[in-house]
Amino acid sequence: MSPSPDTILVSEVGPRDGLQSIARTMPTPDKLRWIDALHAAGVREIEVGSFVPPALLPQMADARELVVHARSLPGLQVAALAPNLRGAQAAFEAGVHKLTIPVSVTEAHSLANVRKTHEQVFAELAAIAALKRDRYPHVELEAGLSVAFGCTLQGAVSDDETMRMVDRAAEAGADVIGLSDTSGYAEPRQVRRLFRKLQDAVGAKAGGAHFHNTRGQGLANVLAALDVGVTTFDASQGGIGGCPYAPGASGNIVTEDLVYLLEAMGFATGIDIEGLIAARGILQQALEGEPLYGMVPDAGLPKGFRYADAKAVHA
Amino acid sequence: MSPSPDTILVSEVGPRDGLQSIARTMPTPDKLRWIDALHAAGVREIEVGSFVPPALLPQMADARELVVHARSLPGLQVAALAPNLRGAQAAFEAGVHKLTIPVSVTEAHSLANVRKTHEQVFAELAAIAALKRDRYPHVELEAGLSVAFGCTLQGAVSDDETMRMVDRAAEAGADVIGLSDTSGYAEPRQVRRLFRKLQDAVGAKAGGAHFHNTRGQGLANVLAALDVGVTTFDASQGGIGGCPYAPGASGNIVTEDLVYLLEAMGFATGIDIEGLIAARGILQQALEGEPLYGMVPDAGLPKGFRYADAKAVHA
Repeated sequence: MSPSPDTILVSEVGPRDGLQSIARTMPTPDKLRWIDALHAAGVREIEVGSFVPPALLPQMADARELVVHARSLPGLQVAALAPNLRGAQAAFEAGVHKLTIPVSVTEAHSLANVRKTHEQVFAELAAIAALKRDRYPHVELEAGLSVAFGCTLQGAVSDDETMRMVDRAAEAGADVIGLSDTSGYAEPRQVRRLFRKLQDAVGAKAGGAHFHNTRGQGLANVLAALDVGVTTFDASQGGIGGCPYAPGASGNIVTEDLVYLLEAMGFATGIDIEGLIAARGILQQALEGEPLYGMVPDAGLPKGFRYADAKAVHA
Repeated sequence: MSPSPDTILVSEVGPRDGLQSIARTMPTPDKLRWIDALHAAGVREIEVGSFVPPALLPQMADARELVVHARSLPGLQVAALAPNLRGAQAAFEAGVHKLTIPVSVTEAHSLANVRKTHEQVFAELAAIAALKRDRYPHVELEAGLSVAFGCTLQGAVSDDETMRMVDRAAEAGADVIGLSDTSGYAEPRQVRRLFRKLQDAVGAKAGGAHFHNTRGQGLANVLAALDVGVTTFDASQGGIGGCPYAPGASGNIVTEDLVYLLEAMGFATGIDIEGLIAARGILQQALEGEPLYGMVPDAGLPKGFRYADAKAVHA
């Protein structure tokens, strides 16, 4: 499963992290068209939704339908998120290939986000891991460590705090442990340091980076993570999402700009940027008026641009 | 003059590179207020204007007045740009501390930008350097190598092409040679490679990085340059400028986000981010309706943020 050193997996989380942070609900047919277009552009992993009660997040009510459809797309790794055992069970049943369970590094964020103490969260994660081992052993179970670089409630987060949660997530049975900069606290030195510690602590279970671009630092943090061998990056088209409590702050790092960075540096993603821009058009249409971020869609590819696999573009 | 390894010089080029790319002219009193506010925020170098014929760039007609005023601000290094000997003479007479002469790495860009062949450009640079040595020896003369990483006209630019121009600029008498990514072609591996070559070729004459954020790669390129010891970075407030020929493409990297990156990483800039945001307000008011870029002004500083010099911010 691990990509060769010059290949990077870009995991598109817009349909989940992006859309769950936008008040209105994107109609299911639009989501399906968008997912199809992302797949056609060469995206090989998409987090299509979150298995949460529709009363809580009506934007995510069609998660099951999206998983079922996405599974029909050849070569696509279908990912979803679930905050608890009930959601995980529904995600497993729907047929996800990868399931992410969010685990807040700070207890303050955990209580605010899922109303659970760390004790409760890890008990739930252990139960999900047990269910997976029993009935869905082929599913990749990721613990996504939220606020791993800093927390809007607590402020600074020490490496030790994050690493304690890494150890507990590994003990609870996660297959992979990723680090999330939920609200844009990370800086490159910290990124290099923490991912090295993660790799030292859990080896092959070390997962990818989930950065937000809240303070414009997203791609600098990606470069820092690349430098220490991280090979999976979450991103959302148009950087949609943001934080409802921080007006003007964008969401995830922008897929379009990330893919450009990677390809320009010589890391093959398998993704066609013109195809991504076509997919962005669907998003733009379906969420008319919603701010989309990213510079590559406006600027276009530079004259003479070459993809990592040396496909020349005559721009 | 060279800063200690943990100190970085942020050179604010908005009043020149930013404003010269915007069609309307910012009134001189607004420019003066803006420059004062930047200085008050702790900015220690400002490129206040360009010494070009007012018929060509009416936005820059007040360059002399701005230099004279900026010289009155304590501790400020006053920089300007001039494309030829006549402009350089006017800049020297006005009292600049630092003068940048743009030198296009590709002849196509040189002909389009200043209507001169390389032969003519280096003859002009040599004449400027001679004038400087004779009458203004204390002024720092920088050759700013445009399109050093790629060119909208030519496409890809090889390291060898750039390095040939580095050698010629050094021979012509430049004190410092900086590399400019004029239209957002640079990627981090290239940045590391080229700045290392620059340092190997000219040693202490190796200058700073002037990145544009055309494709959103600006801060990743800054990180790459920091990794190889670059200590001077140009930036513009709000990322103003852009390219009149590439709608939607932003201008320089955004000062606010750059200073945040540097301070968060532990590089002291001497700049107060709240002060920068106050200065941005002046720009916003004076150029109402002009798009300003940057995420830090909207997101604010994170809770518990510490400047490199350990001044804690209780956000």
